[in-house]
Amino acid sequence: MIITQAIKQLYMKKQEKIQKKKTLILEALKRLLQNNVYSRITVQDVADEAGFSKGGLLHYFPTKEDMYIEFMEYLFNSINDEHRNILKGNLHSKAKASISAMYGVERFFLDPSTAKVLINLILYAYEDEKIMVRLKEFIRRHLELYKTIINEAREDLPQRRKTDFDAEFHARIAQILMISAGLFESIDPLPIDNLNLIRYIISIFRG
Amino acid sequence: MIITQAIKQLYMKKQEKIQKKKTLILEALKRLLQNNVYSRITVQDVADEAGFSKGGLLHYFPTKEDMYIEFMEYLFNSINDEHRNILKGNLHSKAKASISAMYGVERFFLDPSTAKVLINLILYAYEDEKIMVRLKEFIRRHLELYKTIINEAREDLPQRRKTDFDAEFHARIAQILMISAGLFESIDPLPIDNLNLIRYIISIFRG
Repeated sequence: MIITQAIKQLYMKKQEKIQKKKTLILEALKRLLQNNVYSRITVQDVADEAGFSKGGLLHYFPTKEDMYIEFMEYLFNSINDEHRNILKGNLHSKAKASISAMYGVERFFLDPSTAKVLINLILYAYEDEKIMVRLKEFIRRHLELYKTIINEAREDLPQRRKTDFDAEFHARIAQILMISAGLFESIDPLPIDNLNLIRYIISIFRG
Repeated sequence: MIITQAIKQLYMKKQEKIQKKKTLILEALKRLLQNNVYSRITVQDVADEAGFSKGGLLHYFPTKEDMYIEFMEYLFNSINDEHRNILKGNLHSKAKASISAMYGVERFFLDPSTAKVLINLILYAYEDEKIMVRLKEFIRRHLELYKTIINEAREDLPQRRKTDFDAEFHARIAQILMISAGLFESIDPLPIDNLNLIRYIISIFRG
């Protein structure tokens, strides 16, 4: 029994170590994607950026596609985890707190250099069904988060005005603005103030 | 004098003919871009789709890049022309008419199959400065259109509520929603009702 546990611990430790190495590689890929398109980035480029040999990288990700799919999972999971944390808090009743909480989680999307990462992701999703399934799942989960927040906010707060649109419609509006604003800023910077954008999105929560 | 005019007319006729052929080719490219990414579309594919020989196509567009840049011009110019026509009408004072006018012009963006064309365009803009300059110019002109409409609407109509945001901010919000909604529908269709989307955007016009 004790031996089994010891083996299990050793295994867990090894897994943790692998995950750490993988994270280093995926963070390197993310940095490269902020300045280049996926098709032009080679495995060697990622290895160089991460401080690995090419062989070392291929030990963790046998193909470039494996790396890309895990990159997407990594990106989406970290955003989803942070979202779950927001939902645990009492977001809707503290407008000021909710602004900073939203800003914290969605700062990734609001950064114009993220736009390139996203555009790459979407383009390759159109080409590869596996990527599209995962992207669609993320977009839907992101939408559901907004829907939950909107429904809770409307239960607790008086709506500012009668609205013809349902929570799902408003959630999609909020989602589009949150995910796409950085894209427009990356093409034609106004610049838009992120805090104003979040304030606008929170105003949607109240109808 | 009469001879010069005759030559001019002949020249104009030839130009018209060239433009017609080019339009056939660009429309074929647009159809292909709705189902595929630019990097995977060959000149031969476009020629086949347009009913030209490859040599025939290259007569009008010497390189694939020439064709792509003219495609972008073609797309943007047709949208800009339609926008100008809207501005000539008395958009803001007739809410119903404005809804259908907006819908008419922006139907291109609202069509989810357009999303692929746009994503291609944006990705290659990140790679090619020439394309980025033109894309940025279009996004800015599109924004200015919304700004004009918002400013006119606010002069004529009482604002529904006091707003902290200026016309430029609201114009960017309207623009993001109009251009990106089809993209989200192409990934995760709700589906969103386009008329509702336009109604929402028009509600932004009033602050």
